[in-house]
Amino acid sequence: MAYKNYPMVSRVIFGRGSFNQLGDILEPMRLNEKAPFIFLVDDVFKGNSWLTSRIPLAYKDEIIYISADEEPKTSQVDELVEQLILSHNDRPSGIIGIGGGTILDLAKAVAIMLTNEGLAKDYQGWDLVKFPAIYHVGIPTISGTGSEVSRTTVLTGPEKKLGINSDFTPFDQVILDPELTKDVPTNQWFYTGMDCFIHCVESLNGTYLNAFSKTYGEKAYELCKEIFLENNLSEKESQDKLMMASWHGGMSIAYSQVGVAHAMSYGLSYLLGTKHGIGNCIVFDHLSEFYPEDVKLFKDMKAKHKIDLPQNICRDLDDNEFNIMIDIALSLEPLWENALGKQWKQKISREKLISLYKKM
Amino acid sequence: MAYKNYPMVSRVIFGRGSFNQLGDILEPMRLNEKAPFIFLVDDVFKGNSWLTSRIPLAYKDEIIYISADEEPKTSQVDELVEQLILSHNDRPSGIIGIGGGTILDLAKAVAIMLTNEGLAKDYQGWDLVKFPAIYHVGIPTISGTGSEVSRTTVLTGPEKKLGINSDFTPFDQVILDPELTKDVPTNQWFYTGMDCFIHCVESLNGTYLNAFSKTYGEKAYELCKEIFLENNLSEKESQDKLMMASWHGGMSIAYSQVGVAHAMSYGLSYLLGTKHGIGNCIVFDHLSEFYPEDVKLFKDMKAKHKIDLPQNICRDLDDNEFNIMIDIALSLEPLWENALGKQWKQKISREKLISLYKKM
Repeated sequence: MAYKNYPMVSRVIFGRGSFNQLGDILEPMRLNEKAPFIFLVDDVFKGNSWLTSRIPLAYKDEIIYISADEEPKTSQVDELVEQLILSHNDRPSGIIGIGGGTILDLAKAVAIMLTNEGLAKDYQGWDLVKFPAIYHVGIPTISGTGSEVSRTTVLTGPEKKLGINSDFTPFDQVILDPELTKDVPTNQWFYTGMDCFIHCVESLNGTYLNAFSKTYGEKAYELCKEIFLENNLSEKESQDKLMMASWHGGMSIAYSQVGVAHAMSYGLSYLLGTKHGIGNCIVFDHLSEFYPEDVKLFKDMKAKHKIDLPQNICRDLDDNEFNIMIDIALSLEPLWENALGKQWKQKISREKLISLYKKM
Repeated sequence: MAYKNYPMVSRVIFGRGSFNQLGDILEPMRLNEKAPFIFLVDDVFKGNSWLTSRIPLAYKDEIIYISADEEPKTSQVDELVEQLILSHNDRPSGIIGIGGGTILDLAKAVAIMLTNEGLAKDYQGWDLVKFPAIYHVGIPTISGTGSEVSRTTVLTGPEKKLGINSDFTPFDQVILDPELTKDVPTNQWFYTGMDCFIHCVESLNGTYLNAFSKTYGEKAYELCKEIFLENNLSEKESQDKLMMASWHGGMSIAYSQVGVAHAMSYGLSYLLGTKHGIGNCIVFDHLSEFYPEDVKLFKDMKAKHKIDLPQNICRDLDDNEFNIMIDIALSLEPLWENALGKQWKQKISREKLISLYKKM
């Protein structure tokens, strides 16, 4: 048996206001005046000078605003890369993602595709990337996805929803500034926070678990319970802790794997374009037979924060559509093996998955 | 205020038996046949073929056995570097430390001094290293010091005991194989484990604390209590968990600072050569006025594992010798500021330190 040799984020800075250090951090990384820094920024910050005025622009640096309304796509990565190649003579000095999981994943993928030939879809899978990415920086503005520490960048391609999983994927630099999350709307805060909670549940209950994943997962799980179920945290403490929960939860699945909720949620995203955070919530709500205690906790959290999840989103689907979702979900074999063990194929059937999807 | 931009270990592998993957890990890092891998190995493993037969030697690779009976010295680093330069035409492909904090710190320091001119003592301090170290790998065989994740390498020099604290210090690769700790004697296990416990106490009770350090520190603290005070862990679980506690405890102080026990323990080490782990225990045992609850827990742990600490080690010291220890301790200003706040100079006196040292 071979253990994973996990590539870590190279540098990390944590603190309220640490975003102000971005200029000092980037300065020594500039290759030359023609090689710009490209800032991929969630378009919710467009016109928000509190944030944008602090993005250090010089020479040919550029901000590209990106909507995170949809899950990131391989075609979107290819378009961004083409746009950068056409509009700048020199390869960028770096790509800086400022946003949630969608923007962070796009930043990682663009950094990879600037040095690797072909199309992003060709790299969906494990260890297909040949050349190191260009310098890339991740700055989360919402907490939970764990994208800031992971060696993957999950993309929806023409044939599958699957990550570009490689040693070159992790960020060279992460800036964890909890203050950047202060204006996240409650629903979004909840869905993305639950991504972290579900990471922990799937890691801690999986067969791939080991002491490395377990210690990270337990800490993040405990933080999530404190944040979403208790009443003793100030707003700032809650922001700080959720940012760390996301980090630890990300490290936990980095060294284990996710499970049933993620597998089924990928099916929803692929077919219906359901965003990852809310998709996980919609699925997890119906997984009490797999994670009984934690689904109960999840329902408590949902009630406490008055979150109304969409219902019956699969109501109008036909058999063919159910089959597409099921094919996507079942193709994620490591997730099922982690959740149900080596004999997972005997424990889950297409009928079971249809009946679950029909409840959602 | 500027936050630290922390350089992380580049890659980490965790698991019982993961040491067997060392050959596969090193192979792509070999520069050429004349550039050897140098294995610095704790001499307790000399003749222990269970471990040494698995060290992958090829070409001009070399094992150098090193005693960890004494704290690592700057002169020892300089001698090792000279020995390597004289005995090999090419600069090594990498330095691999296999041992406890002493060996790991030597490996980091040797890797740095192979690419930086002058003597190791010239680099004791913060950010004095100019050039990247050569590739270096840390493989702990005892858990607790946190050296495997830290950006320092603590050395006793002619004038001070102080780390070479730099962005180039952290390991490029860490292998966490808890099985390697199976033969650690109980005393050593306790002293080194308590290094981790004290890291957590000093971090969690310090004024430098933030959510990053806190979440790592709380997890490591909780693991230490489970390992050293409860009875429900198997031997293997306990080894696994202590290795992770060391890692998390190291990350916690990485982003905060240690405190009174470490400052005073450095004094003991400098003057008397007291090893770091036992020195911390000797000091911490007398710090109830600074860390009341945790010193009580420490005494419980000590009793449970029937550890007899050396007593009265300062009995025969004269005033001059006390002053040397106090000078060393008080020179570690960040440690005191972390422990007692910005006004620390008003809160601690030389008389107080003498009275504490006299009890030890």
